[in-house]
Amino acid sequence: MQHTVLTGDRPTGPLHLGHYFGSLANRVRLQDRFPMYVLVADYQVITDRDLPGEIQRNITELLLDYLAVGLDPAKVTIFQHSAVPELNQLMLPFLSLVTVSELSRNPTVKDEIAHSSQKAVSGLMFTYPVHQAADILFCKGTLVPVGKDQLPHLEVTRTIARRFNERYGRVFPVPEAMLGERPLLQGLDGGKMSKSRGNAIALSATEDETAALIRKARTDSERLITYDEENRPQVANLLMIASLCLGRPPAELAAEIGYGGASALKRLTTDAVNDFLRPIRKRRNEHGEAEVREILAEGNRRARERAVVTLDEVRAAMGF
Amino acid sequence: MQHTVLTGDRPTGPLHLGHYFGSLANRVRLQDRFPMYVLVADYQVITDRDLPGEIQRNITELLLDYLAVGLDPAKVTIFQHSAVPELNQLMLPFLSLVTVSELSRNPTVKDEIAHSSQKAVSGLMFTYPVHQAADILFCKGTLVPVGKDQLPHLEVTRTIARRFNERYGRVFPVPEAMLGERPLLQGLDGGKMSKSRGNAIALSATEDETAALIRKARTDSERLITYDEENRPQVANLLMIASLCLGRPPAELAAEIGYGGASALKRLTTDAVNDFLRPIRKRRNEHGEAEVREILAEGNRRARERAVVTLDEVRAAMGF
Repeated sequence: MQHTVLTGDRPTGPLHLGHYFGSLANRVRLQDRFPMYVLVADYQVITDRDLPGEIQRNITELLLDYLAVGLDPAKVTIFQHSAVPELNQLMLPFLSLVTVSELSRNPTVKDEIAHSSQKAVSGLMFTYPVHQAADILFCKGTLVPVGKDQLPHLEVTRTIARRFNERYGRVFPVPEAMLGERPLLQGLDGGKMSKSRGNAIALSATEDETAALIRKARTDSERLITYDEENRPQVANLLMIASLCLGRPPAELAAEIGYGGASALKRLTTDAVNDFLRPIRKRRNEHGEAEVREILAEGNRRARERAVVTLDEVRAAMGF
Repeated sequence: MQHTVLTGDRPTGPLHLGHYFGSLANRVRLQDRFPMYVLVADYQVITDRDLPGEIQRNITELLLDYLAVGLDPAKVTIFQHSAVPELNQLMLPFLSLVTVSELSRNPTVKDEIAHSSQKAVSGLMFTYPVHQAADILFCKGTLVPVGKDQLPHLEVTRTIARRFNERYGRVFPVPEAMLGERPLLQGLDGGKMSKSRGNAIALSATEDETAALIRKARTDSERLITYDEENRPQVANLLMIASLCLGRPPAELAAEIGYGGASALKRLTTDAVNDFLRPIRKRRNEHGEAEVREILAEGNRRARERAVVTLDEVRAAMGF
C-alpha cells in the first residue's frame, strides 16, 4: 500500500539523542519509501507556555536539526502549522463530529492536564486531539508514527475520519498508527530526557559539552560494569546510549569494560556519542538561517497547496 | 467614534418579519453610518443539524432577502464563514486564551445545549463563543448588534480581545454590544416566531400565503379589540405586527378597529403586512441567483483580504 506519513515536533528547543533514536532515525528511513509531511507545531507551544518567546529561533534550530540528521526537503514537506489556514479551518467541521464528553475522556489530554503548570485547562489544550486530526487528515495521512501514549489521540482522528465519511461521503482515509516512537533513553540524571532538565545531549552540542554532560551523569560505585536495567538503570542507560551509537549490544560493551568502573564507561560513551554525532554536527554547520527560511517557505507553500485541495473536497462534500 | 459593525445570520431558512423588525431594519440604517460585515454563518448550521442539506439554497435565499430589504453590497461586505480560512485560523490562538471552565459556564451555551436535539454536546457547539470571537475580531469589529441573550457570548469575545492584547500587545479593539436585537414579534400561534414552526410570515411569502397565515392566527372571542400584552398576547401581537408595518401605535389601531373583532383585526394586519412588504418583495424579484453568487464571491474576497491582514498582525504579535 502507498502510505502518506504525517509526523512533527513542537518547536520547544533543540532536538537531542532521545529524539534521534526515538523518532528522527525512523523518519529518515521512511522518507525514501513514502511521501512525508513534517509539521512544526508552532501553535501547540502556546498550549504549554504562557509566552511563545523565542519561537522563531526555536523553529530555525529545529530545521537545522532536521537537515543535520538527514531529512531531505526535496523528499519531505516541512511546514509550520500557523502558515496553513486551510488546515486549521478543518477544525470547524471536525469539532462538530466529536462530543465534549469524548474530548473529556481522552486519557492523553487528562494526563497533559495533570502535568500542566497552567492553573486551568485552556480550550486549546482541551481540543488538541481535534487539531491533531486536522494535522493528519489535511494531507490524507495514512501512517502516523506515534508512541503508545499518543494512541488515544490517534483514535480521535480515526473516529473523526470515519464519522466524516459516513455523514458526508468518503473523503478521508482512516490513518494507522506506526507504533514505535518511544523514549529509548533516559536523561543523564535518571529522569525523563528533556532539554529543560539539562540532562539531554543535544544533537547540536559541542564535543566538550557532550563530555561534560556525560561526566556529570549519575552512576553507581560498583566497579564491575554490567547491563542490568532493573537494578542499575543509570549504568544501563549509558550503555544503551553507547550501544545505539555504536550499533553493538549493550551487554557486549559492558563485558568489554569489565572492572573499568564508571570512568571507563563514561569515556566509552562519550567517544561513542561524539563519533556518532560528528557527521551530523558537521552537516548542521553546512546549513544557515537563510536556507532554512527558504525551505520552510517552500514547505509551507506545498502544504498549503495540499490543504486547499482537501478543504475544497470537504466543503463540496458538506454541500457548501 | 468610527465603528466597524459585525452582524450575520445562520442560513437556516428564509428571513421573516421578526428578523426584519428585530435586526434587518437596524442593519439597513447602520450601513450608511459604518463599515459593516455581514456573516453568513454556514459552519454554524452544523451545530444544530445533523446534515447541512440545502445549505446552498438557503444561502441564496438569505442573500436575496438581504437585497430585498435594502442591504447594499457596495456598502456592506456579505461573506460566508467557510470561505475565509484566515478567519477560522484565529480559533487556535483564541482557544488558548479561554479555559474549559469558562466555556462550560457560558449561559447561552448551556441554554443552547438544553434546547438542542443532539444527544451529546458537540465540540463545535461547546467552542461556539470562540468562533464568534474570531468572527467579530477578524475585521476588528467594534460594534455588535445583539439580543440580551447573546451578551454572555460577546463577553467571551471581549475577554479574548483583552487577554490577547495584554499578552501579545494591542492588536484588537474590545467590541461593544449594540443592544436591541430582540424578538419584537411572536409567532402567529403564540409561540416563538420561527420558520420551522410555520408561524412566521416570510419576507418572500406571496400576498395569498401571508393572508392565509394571518387568517389561521390564534386570537380570542372578545369582539372589542384592545391592546393588552398581558391578558391578550395574541391579539396584541397582531396589533404589533400591523403597528410596525404602518408606523402607528398599536393602541391607536385597536381603537380604530373597536368592536370589529378578530376578523377586522386580521384584515387590517394582512393589508398592513402586504402593503409594507410589497416593495421588499418586488426588489427581491429583481435579483437572481447568478447575481447573488457574484455578490458573495466579491464579499468573500473582501473579507478574506481583511482576515489575511489581521492574521498577519496576530502571527507577528505572537512571534511566529
